[in-house]
Amino acid sequence: MKIAFIGLGRMGSGMARNLLRAGHGVTVYNRSREKADALAADGASVAASPGEACEGVEVAVTMLADDRAVEEVVLGESGMAAGLAKDAIHISSSTISTALARRLASGHAAIGQGFVSAPVFGRPDAAAEAKLVVVAAGPEELISRCRPLFDAIGRQTCVAGSEPWQANAVKLCGNFMIAAMLEAFGESFAVLRKASVEPRLFVDVMTALFKSPVYANYGRNIAEERFEPAGFALKLGLKDIRLTLENADQSAAPMPLASVIRDQLISAMALGQGELDWSSVSRISARNAGL
Amino acid sequence: MKIAFIGLGRMGSGMARNLLRAGHGVTVYNRSREKADALAADGASVAASPGEACEGVEVAVTMLADDRAVEEVVLGESGMAAGLAKDAIHISSSTISTALARRLASGHAAIGQGFVSAPVFGRPDAAAEAKLVVVAAGPEELISRCRPLFDAIGRQTCVAGSEPWQANAVKLCGNFMIAAMLEAFGESFAVLRKASVEPRLFVDVMTALFKSPVYANYGRNIAEERFEPAGFALKLGLKDIRLTLENADQSAAPMPLASVIRDQLISAMALGQGELDWSSVSRISARNAGL
Amino acid sequence: MKIAFIGLGRMGSGMARNLLRAGHGVTVYNRSREKADALAADGASVAASPGEACEGVEVAVTMLADDRAVEEVVLGESGMAAGLAKDAIHISSSTISTALARRLASGHAAIGQGFVSAPVFGRPDAAAEAKLVVVAAGPEELISRCRPLFDAIGRQTCVAGSEPWQANAVKLCGNFMIAAMLEAFGESFAVLRKASVEPRLFVDVMTALFKSPVYANYGRNIAEERFEPAGFALKLGLKDIRLTLENADQSAAPMPLASVIRDQLISAMALGQGELDWSSVSRISARNAGL
Amino acid sequence: MKIAFIGLGRMGSGMARNLLRAGHGVTVYNRSREKADALAADGASVAASPGEACEGVEVAVTMLADDRAVEEVVLGESGMAAGLAKDAIHISSSTISTALARRLASGHAAIGQGFVSAPVFGRPDAAAEAKLVVVAAGPEELISRCRPLFDAIGRQTCVAGSEPWQANAVKLCGNFMIAAMLEAFGESFAVLRKASVEPRLFVDVMTALFKSPVYANYGRNIAEERFEPAGFALKLGLKDIRLTLENADQSAAPMPLASVIRDQLISAMALGQGELDWSSVSRISARNAGL
Repeated sequence: MKIAFIGLGRMGSGMARNLLRAGHGVTVYNRSREKADALAADGASVAASPGEACEGVEVAVTMLADDRAVEEVVLGESGMAAGLAKDAIHISSSTISTALARRLASGHAAIGQGFVSAPVFGRPDAAAEAKLVVVAAGPEELISRCRPLFDAIGRQTCVAGSEPWQANAVKLCGNFMIAAMLEAFGESFAVLRKASVEPRLFVDVMTALFKSPVYANYGRNIAEERFEPAGFALKLGLKDIRLTLENADQSAAPMPLASVIRDQLISAMALGQGELDWSSVSRISARNAGL
Repeated sequence: MKIAFIGLGRMGSGMARNLLRAGHGVTVYNRSREKADALAADGASVAASPGEACEGVEVAVTMLADDRAVEEVVLGESGMAAGLAKDAIHISSSTISTALARRLASGHAAIGQGFVSAPVFGRPDAAAEAKLVVVAAGPEELISRCRPLFDAIGRQTCVAGSEPWQANAVKLCGNFMIAAMLEAFGESFAVLRKASVEPRLFVDVMTALFKSPVYANYGRNIAEERFEPAGFALKLGLKDIRLTLENADQSAAPMPLASVIRDQLISAMALGQGELDWSSVSRISARNAGL
Repeated sequence: MKIAFIGLGRMGSGMARNLLRAGHGVTVYNRSREKADALAADGASVAASPGEACEGVEVAVTMLADDRAVEEVVLGESGMAAGLAKDAIHISSSTISTALARRLASGHAAIGQGFVSAPVFGRPDAAAEAKLVVVAAGPEELISRCRPLFDAIGRQTCVAGSEPWQANAVKLCGNFMIAAMLEAFGESFAVLRKASVEPRLFVDVMTALFKSPVYANYGRNIAEERFEPAGFALKLGLKDIRLTLENADQSAAPMPLASVIRDQLISAMALGQGELDWSSVSRISARNAGL
Repeated sequence: MKIAFIGLGRMGSGMARNLLRAGHGVTVYNRSREKADALAADGASVAASPGEACEGVEVAVTMLADDRAVEEVVLGESGMAAGLAKDAIHISSSTISTALARRLASGHAAIGQGFVSAPVFGRPDAAAEAKLVVVAAGPEELISRCRPLFDAIGRQTCVAGSEPWQANAVKLCGNFMIAAMLEAFGESFAVLRKASVEPRLFVDVMTALFKSPVYANYGRNIAEERFEPAGFALKLGLKDIRLTLENADQSAAPMPLASVIRDQLISAMALGQGELDWSSVSRISARNAGL
């Protein structure tokens, strides 16, 4: 397949490389050119604008930082909407708001283009190893056409429904589940440090209890206060919790636990932790306990 | 070893049986006699009081519902403190307050008896299969003497420190970690039901993401609203969160996420869910979303 | 002074009438014409568009429902920005976001117009009786020119700073203070109903304690569950708490109590209380206590 | 009337003095004798124990720090229960748990003594000026007999019900209402400081809005960060919120706003603010905003 890939951050680069490895023809675009050039060595063509990247492709994937970036890339000058052919598909893998996903779906539909939301779970190493979990939503026929691409970047694809924004709702809830674990770890470590219990011991117990590599890895990082380099920056984590709460508000569903997390993340922002890994939210619990 | 085992609920029966299987001599006591008699078939002796059960044993294990039950069994008439020999050890496996653990430690010490806290993680099936995770704390020498018993009931033993109450702090935090997951699941399912996403799909995604049987099992139960029979009754879950918050308060460590959970569990109590599994706290999120 | 007044809801009508009474020449505009006609009987001229209303006036006041309405009226076709003369002043009395207040300030400045934020405290009866509390912010010279108008509509004017959005921040915090009282009342009434204490008794005690008509009035309404007609609709209250939290987020200041209120209001929305008075948020506390 | 007054802290001393002024015969007891001696100058007799103070009196008032102090004074050696005559009345004005109020009611009843709960609202200056608000509960006939005493110490008496603990429930909710105001102030001041709004301006606006001396006084103290000497120590405020939440839990009524306050107060304790006025909880909001 001929594919455009737009957004070559730590996640996007790995995903684009795996599409190349799977034998697809990939044209890449990134705002700062050097990341695109790095992909050229692996066989990618490099475009000068999102619109140019989309010319003649069957599918265009976006993997960008936030709503604003996606809107710019799609609707901006020399943007995707202009470059993409009728019947081509835009796969949005960014973690964006459900509201934007709805707007993109109707926007693309209005000009005869397809739209699928396919956000992914996994950190940059999982992206590099094609071990992402893909959550896709959109019209069944479009999902089918995209399957080979999902298979190339992930270890598992789950279909959330026939409306693209449903996948974004699932992705936001998933990130919230992780954030809940992080906050629970933070509160536990604070109280256990006060009880003179070794943080490492608690990680061992939780690993034995949950038998989850996610608990083992995050637990260890928090226990050892290893927050740099950030696997996922706290400021992005806050962005996602904001989107989670916005979606919940629009659905008239209160999420009190998500509200607590939001408040703790805001406090972490106030203390300058925006670029640290979001597991550093645990510092707020420690600080509020006087540690 | 000669062992007394007091408290033959769903957890205690399995633990006592595994001690018998490991070749130890076990005298059991339970308030309602029939559960003790069931153990007699497996080779246990049956005592008429906690004190009688403790006569001549090296170690006495208690596995009871709450602080009050433990205090009664230890300090009541014909209680353990009276029956237990000097130098014998009381192993408390119940989920009790750190405050009571401190009192028990000093109380036993005052009359020359040893005290070890060894609460366990795992549900009744894990107790039956000797797959519990044991978190032990107490003087090193006492822990060593108790190791064979821990090995007989669990798959792993973690030592939290030299003061018994530290193990209780860890146990309470562990239960809090599970409760945080339950509440996060509840909030996610509510918002996703409003988005017409199949609950089962979210369980699949979370299982793929966390790779944890705890997420898979609880997630499935919540998705299917399967809350009976209770693996762990909601009223006991609330008790544990209360103890968690009490311990945190005594340590001057705020736990806002635990506070949210407590409020949701109280609401569940008000709605008559005390005897359901504590994963039914998810109903509160659904209800507050108008579902 | 020649004044345009745009937005004749329950608050705006009272304010416009008081400007007429004070001898000012007032041209009014309202989306649904009948409310404008009602003012004509008191001497107002009626315009067919916001832009037309603003022609030739020194000051134009907007009192509208939300950000969207203000943006439309200012920037829409035949909007204020087009109709208002250079050096004329736009006074925004609506409860809008601090973000929009910033945009309006720079937008008006760019075309040589002045901008002052002057949100008000008080319910429709206070607006009718010229007893509002006006919180104004903007360049000192502009505030001075507007003073006679503030005096005509309110009993007190407080100046929050030289940047218009500061007044909006104060207004949002003020509404939050009231919401905090409402939520605290709701939780108290729930627990006291369970204690078989007469709600009326608690209102008496709180009135004696706080000596505040706000506590007396809201307390009585909640005690008697008198939520219609709405003095301030719950859906607007939620809108304001959303704006409060957005502003706090942008300032990197967590507001956990505001987060709790937001969650309770969302639950009230889910249960269909959007058009009731926002004091009906108390029903959520009652409901969560099983009442 | 012949009265015993036990507990001569800053509140109790003022109350006892007003009973003397009203012409009653008052025997006082205080753990540290010097405070009792100070009352002797005003005509009080001084007793060496609670029990001695109660001999021959019709009514004994207790005004003590917490549950533990009340239990000691009532049930301890030479305690009230022993000294008080049959048919005499114990008026408990301390802020105690509803659980203890229930135990005291049944305990006194069992030995033929009357029991009335009559906690008070007001700070030490109000106690000195006989301007307290008294919330009384107990059997109607006992309340009637106590009325002259309530009139001597307060400006208003409200009767909460016929069971003493109901008055304690009201008192706890009242303190919670104040705490909610303090926390709301703290969050508002934090966000407004970030908006460069003068704290004093916000106090003015809130005073205009609520027209309450409580808002004016606390608002000013927080704006000026005047937390010493403590009118009401933060550690006692936390104690009361704990009791509020305990009572709510026993009634199966969640109080999420009270939970937030509890967490903030615990954080303040961790930071060494226990002896400051409880309005200093506002510092936690400032701190969490990075101020």
